[in-house]
Amino acid sequence: MLMPFEIDARDPGSRARAGTLHTAHGVVQTPVFMAVGTRATVTGLEPADLAELRAPVVLGNTYHLMLRPGPEVFRRVGGIHRFMGYSGPVLTDSGGYQIFSLAADRTVSEQGALFRSYVDQRRLLLSPERSIEIQTAIGSDIMMVLDECIDSTSGYDATLAAMERTHRWALRSLAARENPAQALFAIVQGGLVPELRQRSAEFLTAHPFDGFAIGGLAVGDTRAEREDVTLASAELLPAERPRYLMGVGTPPDLLHAMLAGVDMFDCVLPTHLAWQGTAFTSTGRVKVTRGSCASADVPLDAACSCRTCQHFSRAYLNHLFKCSEPLGPRLLSLHNLHHYFSLMREARAAILAGTFAAYARDKLAAIDRHEHSGRPLGVAARGAEPS
Amino acid sequence: MLMPFEIDARDPGSRARAGTLHTAHGVVQTPVFMAVGTRATVTGLEPADLAELRAPVVLGNTYHLMLRPGPEVFRRVGGIHRFMGYSGPVLTDSGGYQIFSLAADRTVSEQGALFRSYVDQRRLLLSPERSIEIQTAIGSDIMMVLDECIDSTSGYDATLAAMERTHRWALRSLAARENPAQALFAIVQGGLVPELRQRSAEFLTAHPFDGFAIGGLAVGDTRAEREDVTLASAELLPAERPRYLMGVGTPPDLLHAMLAGVDMFDCVLPTHLAWQGTAFTSTGRVKVTRGSCASADVPLDAACSCRTCQHFSRAYLNHLFKCSEPLGPRLLSLHNLHHYFSLMREARAAILAGTFAAYARDKLAAIDRHEHSGRPLGVAARGAEPS
Repeated sequence: MLMPFEIDARDPGSRARAGTLHTAHGVVQTPVFMAVGTRATVTGLEPADLAELRAPVVLGNTYHLMLRPGPEVFRRVGGIHRFMGYSGPVLTDSGGYQIFSLAADRTVSEQGALFRSYVDQRRLLLSPERSIEIQTAIGSDIMMVLDECIDSTSGYDATLAAMERTHRWALRSLAARENPAQALFAIVQGGLVPELRQRSAEFLTAHPFDGFAIGGLAVGDTRAEREDVTLASAELLPAERPRYLMGVGTPPDLLHAMLAGVDMFDCVLPTHLAWQGTAFTSTGRVKVTRGSCASADVPLDAACSCRTCQHFSRAYLNHLFKCSEPLGPRLLSLHNLHHYFSLMREARAAILAGTFAAYARDKLAAIDRHEHSGRPLGVAARGAEPS
Repeated sequence: MLMPFEIDARDPGSRARAGTLHTAHGVVQTPVFMAVGTRATVTGLEPADLAELRAPVVLGNTYHLMLRPGPEVFRRVGGIHRFMGYSGPVLTDSGGYQIFSLAADRTVSEQGALFRSYVDQRRLLLSPERSIEIQTAIGSDIMMVLDECIDSTSGYDATLAAMERTHRWALRSLAARENPAQALFAIVQGGLVPELRQRSAEFLTAHPFDGFAIGGLAVGDTRAEREDVTLASAELLPAERPRYLMGVGTPPDLLHAMLAGVDMFDCVLPTHLAWQGTAFTSTGRVKVTRGSCASADVPLDAACSCRTCQHFSRAYLNHLFKCSEPLGPRLLSLHNLHHYFSLMREARAAILAGTFAAYARDKLAAIDRHEHSGRPLGVAARGAEPS
């Protein structure tokens, strides 16, 4: 039986939809932005903070968690929820992207990916079966199949070969699944080639996956390319299953993808920028380390209801960052995640009200106005490009 | 008018006493351990965390705060309470100890200490008057006079000269005071020489200071020397004024000093050790990075009621530290401060019950047993020595 997913509303002016996903650790209302908690922690935040933020899902990573603390610890403790003291839904990425982007001494074959551990230098194999075995030990509510990630600007033959291997690996993942309470999503590949994206979607949707992700984006492509592929890919995916755009992105990226009918997102951007001292606000991005913040006795965002904006000034945040005090990144992480979650809640409300197309258009125009009125900010993160 | 201070109870079996201090930002029950918040932040913690911990006082530092954010920001914002979003009592150290231990290119003369700023390399003067001016801008509830700190093992002549200068600076500080709502404490010096400690106490207590600190300890002296000086100095201070032992120390240090009649303490140890991965527990210190913690699905301290012990395991804390995740030090800081505050609350209850001498004896014996049954832990912090 597939993980229950209901469509609650469809926006009349776009492909956007609002849905409800039923996981083993609770209900998730879509569209949803998932907080990145790579190493079983959303950096600097406690589960109580996530509860206060109403964070719907935490995203862990199989590649990092297999190295530390390792699947044995998860088996011993009884899974990631108990390990990190968090009772809400967890999704684990399979490690495919990290094998592609991070692993040392990597050799990818049909069997899987051999690489060197950054913890103890051992050679390890991450195969489709091994990824499922580890995700089973982690006990995530939604597992991802291991995919072969390559640069989205690779040539046709390499893109085709990686896509076909991703398909074979997806079927091996499905066969290796042990716990029916853990959902399993497949990942559509095919780079920037529309014909391959179509073949990938057709192949994978013929099998009983609980959801479908659009993978291989935000790895070398432009925003326009990403939007084209997202739009085309989302259309090829079954309406009754959740659609997940991996590793994307900025608020405009999310709005465009929601317009295209995508339901789920994750990105390091809000927390990553927080650690660099950059805040998303209703009037554009604010770099709190700038001199103009040093004596500004005003909140980061006067329109924001988060704890950081209720209790602290730009001057104090500037001071914390100048002193390299860890409270600074913590308060900015709380704020940036609140900003993202608020956007998603507003978006869902607009879809339910049937006004999402207008909402998204106004929001995109406002962001565009703010981003281009300020000075450009260099941003380096998966799914992010300089605004 | 001096800051009101009442003695609530005296322990019949020792010199220990319980008191109540009335500051402009609330009442403080003594004996009290003050959380070190050098740069207007108790590293990694929010004021809401301090409230949950029932932290009685936060201790800021004039030397660091004059450099960043600088007195102008405090004047503009209206003081440290509003700046850091904290409404409880604040004590500021004068910067004397930091001038002695940290400042670059330091020249100390009768006027004050000239040193080079680590922020912008400017040459700055910290004089008694300037320290009071800055502490007035900071708006702390208790200010400290600028003292001349020297190594406690310095020779007689140097110790005498520093003590006499500290006395002249104390009177200049008293004369420079602007806001009567901010209490001012003097600092007894005199190194390890009983006769000088006596002269210093006699001189300073003849002037209308709100309280008296015992300074110049935990800077090269042994625990036995520190205890002797503390005992002798506390006796020389007026019974009706609060006594503050600066920069000390371990739980046994605090117990010994409370037995001698000391009311107030501060030390970086609980937070400093937390950032190194060491926890104080009811059964001795625990280094969470040790391999034995890696799969220990048990709390740090089964007898502890803090948030960390209620929600997280040693295995998870080990994982966070191994991954250099900032949540690790945060959770250990919460725990270690809770451990210190609990000790102080227990101590006060025992004084009120008239059983403190027995309580302290049992507690010291238990700590001694635990510390010597485990492996030794290297500790480097002001007021700390290897246990």
